[in-house]
Amino acid sequence: MSRIESDAFGEISVASDKYWGAQSQRSLGNFDIGEIRMPVPIIKAFGILKQAAAAVNEEFGLLDPKLASAIKQAASEVAAGKLNEHFPLVVYQTGSGTQSNMNANEVISNRAIEILGGEMGSKKPVHPNDHCNMSQSSNDTFPTVMHIAAVVEISNQLLPKLRDLRDAFQAKSDEFKDIIKIGRTHLQDATPLTLGQEFSGYVQQLTFGIARIEETLPRLALLAQGGTAVGTGLNTKKGFDVKVAAKVAELTGLSFETAPNKFEALAAHDAFVEASGALNTLATSLFKIANDIRYLGSGPRCGYGELSLPENEPGSSIMPGKVNPTQCEAMTMVCAQVMGNHTTITFSGASGQFELNVFKPVMAYNLLTSIRLLGDACKSFRINCVEGIVANEDKIAKVLHESLMLVTALNPKIGYDNASKVAKNAHKKGLTLKQSALELGILTEEEFDEWVRPEKMIGPKD
Amino acid sequence: MSRIESDAFGEISVASDKYWGAQSQRSLGNFDIGEIRMPVPIIKAFGILKQAAAAVNEEFGLLDPKLASAIKQAASEVAAGKLNEHFPLVVYQTGSGTQSNMNANEVISNRAIEILGGEMGSKKPVHPNDHCNMSQSSNDTFPTVMHIAAVVEISNQLLPKLRDLRDAFQAKSDEFKDIIKIGRTHLQDATPLTLGQEFSGYVQQLTFGIARIEETLPRLALLAQGGTAVGTGLNTKKGFDVKVAAKVAELTGLSFETAPNKFEALAAHDAFVEASGALNTLATSLFKIANDIRYLGSGPRCGYGELSLPENEPGSSIMPGKVNPTQCEAMTMVCAQVMGNHTTITFSGASGQFELNVFKPVMAYNLLTSIRLLGDACKSFRINCVEGIVANEDKIAKVLHESLMLVTALNPKIGYDNASKVAKNAHKKGLTLKQSALELGILTEEEFDEWVRPEKMIGPKD
Amino acid sequence: MSRIESDAFGEISVASDKYWGAQSQRSLGNFDIGEIRMPVPIIKAFGILKQAAAAVNEEFGLLDPKLASAIKQAASEVAAGKLNEHFPLVVYQTGSGTQSNMNANEVISNRAIEILGGEMGSKKPVHPNDHCNMSQSSNDTFPTVMHIAAVVEISNQLLPKLRDLRDAFQAKSDEFKDIIKIGRTHLQDATPLTLGQEFSGYVQQLTFGIARIEETLPRLALLAQGGTAVGTGLNTKKGFDVKVAAKVAELTGLSFETAPNKFEALAAHDAFVEASGALNTLATSLFKIANDIRYLGSGPRCGYGELSLPENEPGSSIMPGKVNPTQCEAMTMVCAQVMGNHTTITFSGASGQFELNVFKPVMAYNLLTSIRLLGDACKSFRINCVEGIVANEDKIAKVLHESLMLVTALNPKIGYDNASKVAKNAHKKGLTLKQSALELGILTEEEFDEWVRPEKMIGPKD
Amino acid sequence: MSRIESDAFGEISVASDKYWGAQSQRSLGNFDIGEIRMPVPIIKAFGILKQAAAAVNEEFGLLDPKLASAIKQAASEVAAGKLNEHFPLVVYQTGSGTQSNMNANEVISNRAIEILGGEMGSKKPVHPNDHCNMSQSSNDTFPTVMHIAAVVEISNQLLPKLRDLRDAFQAKSDEFKDIIKIGRTHLQDATPLTLGQEFSGYVQQLTFGIARIEETLPRLALLAQGGTAVGTGLNTKKGFDVKVAAKVAELTGLSFETAPNKFEALAAHDAFVEASGALNTLATSLFKIANDIRYLGSGPRCGYGELSLPENEPGSSIMPGKVNPTQCEAMTMVCAQVMGNHTTITFSGASGQFELNVFKPVMAYNLLTSIRLLGDACKSFRINCVEGIVANEDKIAKVLHESLMLVTALNPKIGYDNASKVAKNAHKKGLTLKQSALELGILTEEEFDEWVRPEKMIGPKD
Repeated sequence: MSRIESDAFGEISVASDKYWGAQSQRSLGNFDIGEIRMPVPIIKAFGILKQAAAAVNEEFGLLDPKLASAIKQAASEVAAGKLNEHFPLVVYQTGSGTQSNMNANEVISNRAIEILGGEMGSKKPVHPNDHCNMSQSSNDTFPTVMHIAAVVEISNQLLPKLRDLRDAFQAKSDEFKDIIKIGRTHLQDATPLTLGQEFSGYVQQLTFGIARIEETLPRLALLAQGGTAVGTGLNTKKGFDVKVAAKVAELTGLSFETAPNKFEALAAHDAFVEASGALNTLATSLFKIANDIRYLGSGPRCGYGELSLPENEPGSSIMPGKVNPTQCEAMTMVCAQVMGNHTTITFSGASGQFELNVFKPVMAYNLLTSIRLLGDACKSFRINCVEGIVANEDKIAKVLHESLMLVTALNPKIGYDNASKVAKNAHKKGLTLKQSALELGILTEEEFDEWVRPEKMIGPKD
Repeated sequence: MSRIESDAFGEISVASDKYWGAQSQRSLGNFDIGEIRMPVPIIKAFGILKQAAAAVNEEFGLLDPKLASAIKQAASEVAAGKLNEHFPLVVYQTGSGTQSNMNANEVISNRAIEILGGEMGSKKPVHPNDHCNMSQSSNDTFPTVMHIAAVVEISNQLLPKLRDLRDAFQAKSDEFKDIIKIGRTHLQDATPLTLGQEFSGYVQQLTFGIARIEETLPRLALLAQGGTAVGTGLNTKKGFDVKVAAKVAELTGLSFETAPNKFEALAAHDAFVEASGALNTLATSLFKIANDIRYLGSGPRCGYGELSLPENEPGSSIMPGKVNPTQCEAMTMVCAQVMGNHTTITFSGASGQFELNVFKPVMAYNLLTSIRLLGDACKSFRINCVEGIVANEDKIAKVLHESLMLVTALNPKIGYDNASKVAKNAHKKGLTLKQSALELGILTEEEFDEWVRPEKMIGPKD
Repeated sequence: MSRIESDAFGEISVASDKYWGAQSQRSLGNFDIGEIRMPVPIIKAFGILKQAAAAVNEEFGLLDPKLASAIKQAASEVAAGKLNEHFPLVVYQTGSGTQSNMNANEVISNRAIEILGGEMGSKKPVHPNDHCNMSQSSNDTFPTVMHIAAVVEISNQLLPKLRDLRDAFQAKSDEFKDIIKIGRTHLQDATPLTLGQEFSGYVQQLTFGIARIEETLPRLALLAQGGTAVGTGLNTKKGFDVKVAAKVAELTGLSFETAPNKFEALAAHDAFVEASGALNTLATSLFKIANDIRYLGSGPRCGYGELSLPENEPGSSIMPGKVNPTQCEAMTMVCAQVMGNHTTITFSGASGQFELNVFKPVMAYNLLTSIRLLGDACKSFRINCVEGIVANEDKIAKVLHESLMLVTALNPKIGYDNASKVAKNAHKKGLTLKQSALELGILTEEEFDEWVRPEKMIGPKD
Repeated sequence: MSRIESDAFGEISVASDKYWGAQSQRSLGNFDIGEIRMPVPIIKAFGILKQAAAAVNEEFGLLDPKLASAIKQAASEVAAGKLNEHFPLVVYQTGSGTQSNMNANEVISNRAIEILGGEMGSKKPVHPNDHCNMSQSSNDTFPTVMHIAAVVEISNQLLPKLRDLRDAFQAKSDEFKDIIKIGRTHLQDATPLTLGQEFSGYVQQLTFGIARIEETLPRLALLAQGGTAVGTGLNTKKGFDVKVAAKVAELTGLSFETAPNKFEALAAHDAFVEASGALNTLATSLFKIANDIRYLGSGPRCGYGELSLPENEPGSSIMPGKVNPTQCEAMTMVCAQVMGNHTTITFSGASGQFELNVFKPVMAYNLLTSIRLLGDACKSFRINCVEGIVANEDKIAKVLHESLMLVTALNPKIGYDNASKVAKNAHKKGLTLKQSALELGILTEEEFDEWVRPEKMIGPKD
């Protein structure tokens, strides 16, 4: 079952149960490139934006209230994700996202027509261009929805999940504050610290990471809407830009504002490159943290073995007791993906030309994917790994006391040269430090036990 | 409606209409990370591999012929893509791809049980591990399907589409062989060449690009199968590796062989980094070509305007005659994606540890996505753009003859200094070269017309 | 002429005219890798840090005032760049930068010995470890000098040069505010804007770019000093960290503070990844800007030709009048370098292990190179290109009026359908809009001249 | 002391003791961007090329034999590296490398003038353009020297050093062939393999890496020379291109040929992107190898401790016995640099425009740096690390026998369920497998010792 839709190129057949129109249908044929569809947050953002634009157009007296009402209702359904299946276009299409803008206009107009009892495809009484796209151009709507989607996803998905992960690490840092362990620099045994101190480094990385991402929001929250075709705002009323941004802010509960310079807002997407840079930095943090944790949990017998990670699934069908650090693996794969997405975004961001950057869809897709994956991975990592980490205190204590680096504590007592002798003798003969010291007759057992105390080595002196 | 499935962790409920089992179900809960599923070519490759392994196990007398037959039938359905919906796992899971290997084992065992009239979930008479995974480990099956999928997709999808695009450019180069145009270096007017020569450079880029990709196939065609858990081949019979590779070659019609060193094949995926490098090089070629074409087609009035590109969809609702180079835009976005995917693959490829690289799924996803996108974009670009390119001969001739760089032809006739005077006078006063030369009285109109002939400037002298 | 220096490994010969000691000399032999030396800003930062540390150690009563005085004098010479030739070590050395820390200690101790009248190489009365490295470890000094160098170079070199470039663009934007030109989206002719508006987009990009870089300074200004070997601050006095940071702030006039968590400061260099991300964003901005300018300046006859760029050197020996946009080329090459450096920094930043990241020198080198190159390129681009840009007003006006997109202004007067007819007729027959309109008899010449006025199309309506 | 040089822009003062001329001097002022000079291999390649071109021009009767002789002598001095100090230009200059081509022309002409007893700066009797640049353009000479330099450096520096490293790993693999150790997958204890097998994976990676690089040589060996300004070969004699390539081959002893399509050779540098891709793949291999080795050498007490790496320098002044894996650190930093350089090369390679890619110098610099660093690092890593690696057989044996994964060998004897019980009991109580098995009474000590034999677990079954 199909109906006829039309655009400036003529008529084309569309499945009856779909709201989209001629330009969307044409795009499906012209861009048969991969399977990756325009991300859902972009579609929802179109719903928000089209609601806001209709409201402002109505306020300016440009749009009939009855039509405005139907458009707003239809757009709110898009914003709620109810019409996702009617957005079939892929990412690799027109570089301005024009076809996705038209997809939104077509879906909203047909749905509004339906609401008003008209005939889908007739463009009456709600026209996709004249009404749904009124005072707008793809060139300003698409960057606007990019920014709306990014801010919404960062604010409502990524940041809460990231803060939860940070808090989980803080709880572990507190829990482990009295467990003294060997430090490792260059992967080599070094002076001791507490496991809580080690985890405090992770907390600090994430705390900074949250701040870095938050600091990108003010520029991400600037909307291009009102620039229309080239940034001049041709065919808009003065103040349209400010009012739309305010309406978007009202609808989302987030502090959007109009961009101070629309030429920049259409032709460059530096705010996306910047935001991707913050995600890239977070990815380096999470990579380091997840890597540390899987190495500290390596073993159970032949690795570092200081931590036990939760067992969430069978490890191996032939090797019992094998617990793989699978959450660390998923996390580090996500981080590698985010770094690659950042390269795509960087290259795309540099490739704007004159009044327009035509890498908008690929930038949107990559940034939103990075946001989604990092958020989901933070949550999965927290629930399925971090919160269940157990310190293997026996193992930690054992290797700490086998270490030769505790000899550092003897420097002020017996001098560097004697301390060196103790350490080298121990290393050569496979002795403990105490055995070595006693064998060399440099100090007594009592002295050793009094002086070599790791708990005195984990902070500056008074 | 659901049934009970079980693994070493206990029982778990699975939807009745799905073939997957306990470990797949568990993975869905443990890795709720994004929406990107394991690519279909990987799933099909599992179908091929499991068929091959069952056949070889049967041949070695390890697997009952009746079970082998059912497994091969079920696996062939997976290979044909009939059971794709039963492979719901995401990319960001265990880094060895263990859960997708188990997904394949579970689906094939349940489907084989069904074929043999048994009860799904009973693991009788076909056990996912004991039979479907016989002589195998996730650690060797996953890299094997990575390689099978990459070779199949490159050979059957990317290369044919790329050769078609190259041929389309060759046809255009032939068509344009007599159109002389201005050359541009540093974007500045330079000495002339033919449009056919310009397009011949694109042909050469693609010809080399095809060769570069073909040269990665011998190493991609080496299969890890037979290495089992750590590369030693524990729990396989001697010769299993060779026989499985031969069987895969037979099933696919492509020249697979067993890898000469299984330790490398499990712990490193350099062949993927290499192949991604070839795709990355192709992406730089296609980026340059698509960029040239959109600039040469820029206008219609205020740009270079030497080419007209096919109009495939409405440009702008308010700007008639506006034809956007949308296929170039889709192509360059794909190229930017491929470059980013290459970063992900590079970083992941460098991050193997000891006997295993645990970035397998993310590497598979990114390489297969690059292959798919490049192939699809080559086809779309060819059909919807390249084949329809028209040379605007009037415009080309007009700017050629306005150019000052043709003065170069006068050097041997009137000397460099006089030629310079002609050019500078023309530049200063906005004259044509001929006007300038005549004004300066340096030569006659007849001499100018005889000497300044672009068609003499497009090759070396005899 | 040489003298004997020694370390724990024994004696080694060093050229008499060099201040460095045994560990530096040994490094030259062990790391014969390339020619890229540790950047000068790192060396100067060591001078600053060693001064500060000596002062604080003296204040704590740990260091004899006479020795402290000589160390401070020697270190101040290092800070002033007077001893650069005594820092021969390459970047690709120990990943903690230990050898460059020892290079600083050795040079300062030998120079201090010289000041105090002692014998170089004797380590008396100033010992490189005991005195110059007092209360310090390579593990905290090297990240400290990384941060000092980055903040100093950004604050004193990059930002001033970047602000000057922004101001130069602002001046051009003002100068060009009344020049109306054709807009270009998708490289295709679009509605008009002023050249000043176009340049205002560049100003906005750079204004945001400056802010992005400035926002990285607070985290870059946090110093690791006081963490010593693993972050615990073993072998320091409480308060050493705060006092050193204050002293560094005093010496540099920049607002350094001690890092809130020393474990993070040694094991992660996220602040460098972040800063590199800001530079990467700036690089995308500058790439876009320089690319626009060279295209707008393309020609002189066969390109866009809207701008004339300053001619700074002979273009071509055979092609007179050829002015190449060489400053744009240098700038875009710098941008490509910065993007690559960012990949190196990202990968390195992700690769920390436990208590230490051992990619410190390569991160320092790449970030400082990016800072230097961007600063220098901004200055060169400004002086040798931007300030001398001239608008070719005739050419700009000519193509503007040839454009078909001005037809948009007729929509409200004669209707979209009639306007389309005018545009299409003009496109088909190669007419101007006015010719086409008059030919079609749709309006009068007076009406056309009154209605089609680009100066009415460059902003929103009241 | 200075002399006056001149070019089309007029006169300029040059230091008397320098051979360079006006255009080089002008470039120093116009491109005050960083300190990185054009790499020496490029300069030497200019020496080779200018020799070859002079010889062919002489053969064609275009160049006076006396002048040709002086040019060839001067150029041979450049090729030998004797005049490096006369090439002061930086990388970030004109994107065609024009100024470095002129630098070569100027140095060679002044040196040839000197040889012939003339006056430097007079351009008589040897003119930098007319004679040294005869039949050439910067647009074909610079890509030619890029290719010459890359092939020479890869063939004569990188590949020999890489083969030596591979051979060193092969020797270690042979040496370690009987040392059975625990395998590790997901960083977790797995089934055993020999240390020789583990190292054989590294050998295979490097063997493939050598092949990958070798396979880029045929396309790198194609020379652009003969294309002149835009690829047409204007102002050359037919056959010039073939003869020059043959002469370059003769001079270098390497198999250079003329490029089949000069348009591609000037406008694209895909061969450089390809070669960089091969280096990038090698970097991932070396990163993995160096990373494994430093982890296997981690300790001495609190890490994996399976390998002892050579001690080349003092580790820590306060921590005796601390041997840091510094060669691994230098190597992994080099790898990170190469990956970043690859991003720069990729982005630059994609950014060609029409008849010319103007990112030539930055591409040349990055590729040659990657080649140099990888070659040097391979040599340093081999001499200072790999050749001195010692297996800690006691530690290896100890952890192998503590491992629970040997239980896998019991599966066929006592069944998977009983084997699981043994392993889980051992894990829970901290017992060895044998202790656990005996405690459970499942088998006898004799049976255990007979069945659990790692040496039976390191290959397929007959």
